[in-house]
Amino acid sequence: MFVSDNYSVGDNGHLLAADYDTVALAKKFGTPLYVMDEGMVRRNCALYRDSINKFYDGKGMALFASKALCCREMCRIAADEGMGLDVVSGGEIYTAVTAGVDAKKLHFHGNNKTCAEIEYALKVGIGRFIADNVEELGNINRLAGESGSRASVLLRIKPGIDAHTHKFVQTGQIDSKFGFALETGEAEEAVIKASEFANIDLVGAACHIGSQIFDIMPFEKAAEVMIDFMADMNEKYRVNLQELDLGGGFGIKYVDGDDPIEYDKYMEKVSVTVKERCKERGMALPFIYLEPGRSIVGEAGITLYTVGSVKRIPDIRTYVAVDGGMTDNPRHSLYGAEYDAVIADRAGEPREEKVTIAGRCCETDLLTEGVLIQTPHPGDTLAMFSTGAYNFSMASNYNRVPRPAMVMIKDGRARVVVKRESYEDIVRNDV
Amino acid sequence: MFVSDNYSVGDNGHLLAADYDTVALAKKFGTPLYVMDEGMVRRNCALYRDSINKFYDGKGMALFASKALCCREMCRIAADEGMGLDVVSGGEIYTAVTAGVDAKKLHFHGNNKTCAEIEYALKVGIGRFIADNVEELGNINRLAGESGSRASVLLRIKPGIDAHTHKFVQTGQIDSKFGFALETGEAEEAVIKASEFANIDLVGAACHIGSQIFDIMPFEKAAEVMIDFMADMNEKYRVNLQELDLGGGFGIKYVDGDDPIEYDKYMEKVSVTVKERCKERGMALPFIYLEPGRSIVGEAGITLYTVGSVKRIPDIRTYVAVDGGMTDNPRHSLYGAEYDAVIADRAGEPREEKVTIAGRCCETDLLTEGVLIQTPHPGDTLAMFSTGAYNFSMASNYNRVPRPAMVMIKDGRARVVVKRESYEDIVRNDV
Repeated sequence: MFVSDNYSVGDNGHLLAADYDTVALAKKFGTPLYVMDEGMVRRNCALYRDSINKFYDGKGMALFASKALCCREMCRIAADEGMGLDVVSGGEIYTAVTAGVDAKKLHFHGNNKTCAEIEYALKVGIGRFIADNVEELGNINRLAGESGSRASVLLRIKPGIDAHTHKFVQTGQIDSKFGFALETGEAEEAVIKASEFANIDLVGAACHIGSQIFDIMPFEKAAEVMIDFMADMNEKYRVNLQELDLGGGFGIKYVDGDDPIEYDKYMEKVSVTVKERCKERGMALPFIYLEPGRSIVGEAGITLYTVGSVKRIPDIRTYVAVDGGMTDNPRHSLYGAEYDAVIADRAGEPREEKVTIAGRCCETDLLTEGVLIQTPHPGDTLAMFSTGAYNFSMASNYNRVPRPAMVMIKDGRARVVVKRESYEDIVRNDV
Repeated sequence: MFVSDNYSVGDNGHLLAADYDTVALAKKFGTPLYVMDEGMVRRNCALYRDSINKFYDGKGMALFASKALCCREMCRIAADEGMGLDVVSGGEIYTAVTAGVDAKKLHFHGNNKTCAEIEYALKVGIGRFIADNVEELGNINRLAGESGSRASVLLRIKPGIDAHTHKFVQTGQIDSKFGFALETGEAEEAVIKASEFANIDLVGAACHIGSQIFDIMPFEKAAEVMIDFMADMNEKYRVNLQELDLGGGFGIKYVDGDDPIEYDKYMEKVSVTVKERCKERGMALPFIYLEPGRSIVGEAGITLYTVGSVKRIPDIRTYVAVDGGMTDNPRHSLYGAEYDAVIADRAGEPREEKVTIAGRCCETDLLTEGVLIQTPHPGDTLAMFSTGAYNFSMASNYNRVPRPAMVMIKDGRARVVVKRESYEDIVRNDV
């Protein structure tokens, strides 16, 4: 009935998220409101953790890709579930560290880490750097030396895999801003370079082939390519690449028709691939990292809006305007992303009206087009599904609209984990 | 040599913005940095003001479209130059009012004003509401009544003009979330409705046909349609529509080939159209509002970045990674917008390398593609032109990247008008 199975309809006809009345949530906390089902988040974390234990003898760790949803409470939950964190900026490191996460469990990614960020990462004792380019390797080495520390480094490799996903989120092919290309010998040169740096411990290699991927095959191919690369390098140079970061990119269900991988199936298949390839190459099994982000939080989140106007334009379309928009969810504007939605007040009624959900920003600002919902009325609560990833994290103050609050629900209790922005917050840095 | 004429090259080869050394600015204030040429902003404000005086006997007012660049100092400058402000949210009203702008000079636009915002606007004594739909008219009337005040209202009309611009920024055609359609009789019904509401003074009509428009013709057509509508309504009903808001949308120069209207030519031509049409219709000349935003601040702004890595991928392309990205300028990601850029350190040297400017965010995140710049090196300052509009205002904390500072330069003096965000700012609302 709904795009994810943690939603149902209450006796009063309201949409329930993990048995919590979403209309009551909207009333209590105001709209727009991000609602995260903490139980589902934790179950998703457990899925990855357990599948690594089951299929790979626990010789690995899942890292939550913070960029999907970075706030202190989410950092705490991921850590509490035994995950590390994939961070991509000083700001994400700061968030994790001030949330109490052990810096050793942070892996610092990104194509352009500033020197200030590298210094900060070294100071807090970050677990791993995933080095993106030669300048960065040099900076990490120099700054580690200056601070009297050592840096454990994985090299970000472009495995040359095209995951057939949206252009903006393809990242494994050679035409990418990320990492060292295999084909050109750049990756090999990076290994030589990194192994010569006095303050760097080169421990492994990382790849990431894209986002919102629905096939296992590209992941298996990437794993093979990466194992071969590591084995080649270990044989050819006096290096010991023993950690393999396979990245993330596991698709989720936004709308009917999206058919995500079962995440433990992924681990099962990729484990076999890694084990077989390592056996062929006579290489010890590497310690493996996975970096799920969207698949941990995406379907666990909904956004609640209040319907403002409903404009039925004969023979054209019906616009349902809500009190949020591209400020809290820019994914339709950015990627043409589609979403499912319902009128939370009458969630059990048939969905018979095809509408375009429009935001409140002063430009076209749509949230999704052609979605079937119950007949909408001004004042209704509209629930949009699968907004847990890349909504809060990408939110802006365009039109000086305050960013919504975020509430986590678990065991019938709802608590604010990110407070709603105030107008004072928005002008705080204005002189 | 550069896309706008307020840039030049200093004796040291550095890019000068309004005679200020941009490399020195980057060093002093850090990067990424928004730099606004206040002199140019004020000249642009004056252009509109003076052309209304010259061609329309001063019977009009230009309103700065805050959404293009909303911070307190910009509100002050626009007001100081005799402009009103077009605001689209409670946050923009708050910014203007706390900057000391007289609320009477604020016009409140937007397709989905919340009741809380309408109450706030009434409380501060806003100049005009531009009503978007019937529910909103009802809310304005009711809330004005409750607060014992009256609301002066213009109706937002879709004149049915397609301005041949980017789909996302077309707003005058019938398939738009904004306003009342003429063709369907919706606009006429709104006039009847508004004139019946006890607490509403219906004073005029507003239109807005799109953004980044390079022809005068669509504006003239819109003016004709609007005058006809006002004359029809004034004749048919006991109403007195005497204010005409012609909106904004005047294009600017982002890259060579963009050929903006001369703004005083616009006013000259549209004045003739309005005067002739009013004469034909026997209608008194309306008071006119224009709403320039982009054309006031767009070309007056540049963004300064520091180059991180330079990746030359043989036969494919060269990625120049900078320390900002879609967080400070999402326009390439959103609209495929193109920008011009130079290496500020060697601005006088030939621009011989075609590159893609990549941001630092953990996705493809490009700023512009295929731009010719001087051979880039890590550590260089890269200046991107025409970033004064819809950059700061659309900025996000994606990847928890702090939003840049903004500096205004005038008469050789540089002052911070928006402080750089800190990590503390970013986590402020995290529990």
